[in-house]
Amino acid sequence: MSKFLSLEARRLDPYTPGEQPQDQQYIKLNTNESPFPPSPRVVKAVSKAELQKLYLYSDPACAALNAAIAKYYELQPENVITGNGSDEILAFAFRAFCGQGKPAAFADITYGFYEAQTALFGLEAERIPLREDFTLNVEDYMDFPGTIFIANPNAPTGMAISRTDIQRLLEKDPSRVVVVDEAYVDFGGESCVPMLYRYDNLLVVQTMSKSRSLAGGRLGFALGSAGLIEDLNRVKYSFNPYNVNRLSLIAGAAAVEDAAYFETCCKAIQGNRAWLTGELERLGFMVLPSSANFVFAKSDRISGGDLYRQLKENGILVRWFDRDRLRDFVRITIGSMEQMAALADALDRILESL
Amino acid sequence: MSKFLSLEARRLDPYTPGEQPQDQQYIKLNTNESPFPPSPRVVKAVSKAELQKLYLYSDPACAALNAAIAKYYELQPENVITGNGSDEILAFAFRAFCGQGKPAAFADITYGFYEAQTALFGLEAERIPLREDFTLNVEDYMDFPGTIFIANPNAPTGMAISRTDIQRLLEKDPSRVVVVDEAYVDFGGESCVPMLYRYDNLLVVQTMSKSRSLAGGRLGFALGSAGLIEDLNRVKYSFNPYNVNRLSLIAGAAAVEDAAYFETCCKAIQGNRAWLTGELERLGFMVLPSSANFVFAKSDRISGGDLYRQLKENGILVRWFDRDRLRDFVRITIGSMEQMAALADALDRILESL
Repeated sequence: MSKFLSLEARRLDPYTPGEQPQDQQYIKLNTNESPFPPSPRVVKAVSKAELQKLYLYSDPACAALNAAIAKYYELQPENVITGNGSDEILAFAFRAFCGQGKPAAFADITYGFYEAQTALFGLEAERIPLREDFTLNVEDYMDFPGTIFIANPNAPTGMAISRTDIQRLLEKDPSRVVVVDEAYVDFGGESCVPMLYRYDNLLVVQTMSKSRSLAGGRLGFALGSAGLIEDLNRVKYSFNPYNVNRLSLIAGAAAVEDAAYFETCCKAIQGNRAWLTGELERLGFMVLPSSANFVFAKSDRISGGDLYRQLKENGILVRWFDRDRLRDFVRITIGSMEQMAALADALDRILESL
Repeated sequence: MSKFLSLEARRLDPYTPGEQPQDQQYIKLNTNESPFPPSPRVVKAVSKAELQKLYLYSDPACAALNAAIAKYYELQPENVITGNGSDEILAFAFRAFCGQGKPAAFADITYGFYEAQTALFGLEAERIPLREDFTLNVEDYMDFPGTIFIANPNAPTGMAISRTDIQRLLEKDPSRVVVVDEAYVDFGGESCVPMLYRYDNLLVVQTMSKSRSLAGGRLGFALGSAGLIEDLNRVKYSFNPYNVNRLSLIAGAAAVEDAAYFETCCKAIQGNRAWLTGELERLGFMVLPSSANFVFAKSDRISGGDLYRQLKENGILVRWFDRDRLRDFVRITIGSMEQMAALADALDRILESL
């Protein structure tokens, strides 16, 4: 850091994204991308004619995309805000719903960005430990006097809680916002979207980076009551009104409109997850029950760090978190069957050589 | 705003972007876009093959684009950071270089976003009045004990200050960062980029939205010492590591590499600006001397608000700011010769009908 850095920025806790080494081609199972290309409709929609319009600003209201998302989820456009990835949407939520007298609560083990963004806005945060078995006990949040952030399914565990658990939090204190980060929900979680019509204190955050194969398009969105969405727009227009570029607006709408492709991809991931889980268990791994497009697994025979390194030597990237409670595990993105088979082969070889 | 909004977010002062009415096709001279499509290289570079890779995250380091920008400006990649429009880059700069003990200073009349972003981070800000004739007196900033933001050329006046003026600010207090927002510099301002090698407290912010015809791609960047850029990255990785999408990374690099197209477009804008300025003066307008891709002009015969409304009735959108010192003027984006001729015709008709 330079000598010019502000005190507030010195206190930041920047997130480290999954590595993207350029030294060779890896089987990339470390950033939870989809293994499938985007819908053919996306590729068609981003036409040469649209590229020639890049000299014009994008629609700051993201009207066409928000309408497509609203239609898909049977909501109104005023219940939707779109962002430059769900990270941006989460930042808007931290700024809008946390601050003086409104601390944030989230699990001690969850998406690392909640920590980074509370530091960004200098917020007070309470980290509530998951149980020993990585399950989340909603009772621990019941009396929290601030804004609750729950990743459901959680990362990096992949474990989900039920919609009724969230419902209890919403009802316990209707003056408190509950933000449910459903980045991975399409792979088997129970979405809170059907509860939106009942609770004006519920905000659901989703992303097109995983189940809609648009990680490179940077598209996230939040669904909530018109009041919550208006609040998020207030932050957006104080930060970056044209926050989504023209091509992503088009790509996102085309992706949402291709429901059949989306469902096929999600089913394939679930099938591959089941297969990989079976293989891992056959090899003696303990695999947490995953509702996401990744699994979190550990073996008694090899440490998480060693497994990560040996897989990398075998041309396969997985994610390893060198911190308490997580160190024994690796997080493996569910890829195509070919990728899963290559991984299983590599694991076989690595374990045999021990 | 909802009852859930934080105190801090209640204090926000969201920016109002230029209107984008959908009721008819307008000649759009209200958001300072380029009238020219992006370089043909951009359209070619964003290929079907690249679209098919949208399932993969973009490079968080923006390495290829930063290298292209660095090469163009004869800098090193560590002197460059790219963002989702220069608005995002400015936000990073406010967070990195302002805070407790480091207030921000900017002109009372300048880009509206500085105000919005200081509120976003709860920063202390000093608004330093421009002179009566809209010129900026650097003496007024000489002893300011914080971070200075100067739009050069300024908006919405289009007026520029000299590089030596900035140099004096940099030298007066080497412990103070000076952020020079050069969004419009390519149309005739004097860029501070050549001074970067001498001053580690200089940050130059630019955008591809204007001179590089990529407003819809959302690309801005900052150039500065490796230390300042590292600080901005610290904020970026606390906010949104994958902040630029794949397609914009490709489009931006292709645009920067086509220097000849860029220069041709900038020259055309300068020519059209000279022509329009002559026409406006012939019609009795007072036109501020512009180094940007817009002019700020007023007439004694019609108020700014009336002119804005009558132009809109004639199918031409310009920007009008309903606030002190600016109310008499309209801001007119320099478009193509056809657009400028249509505007001059409309002005003729409007003034004749008075």
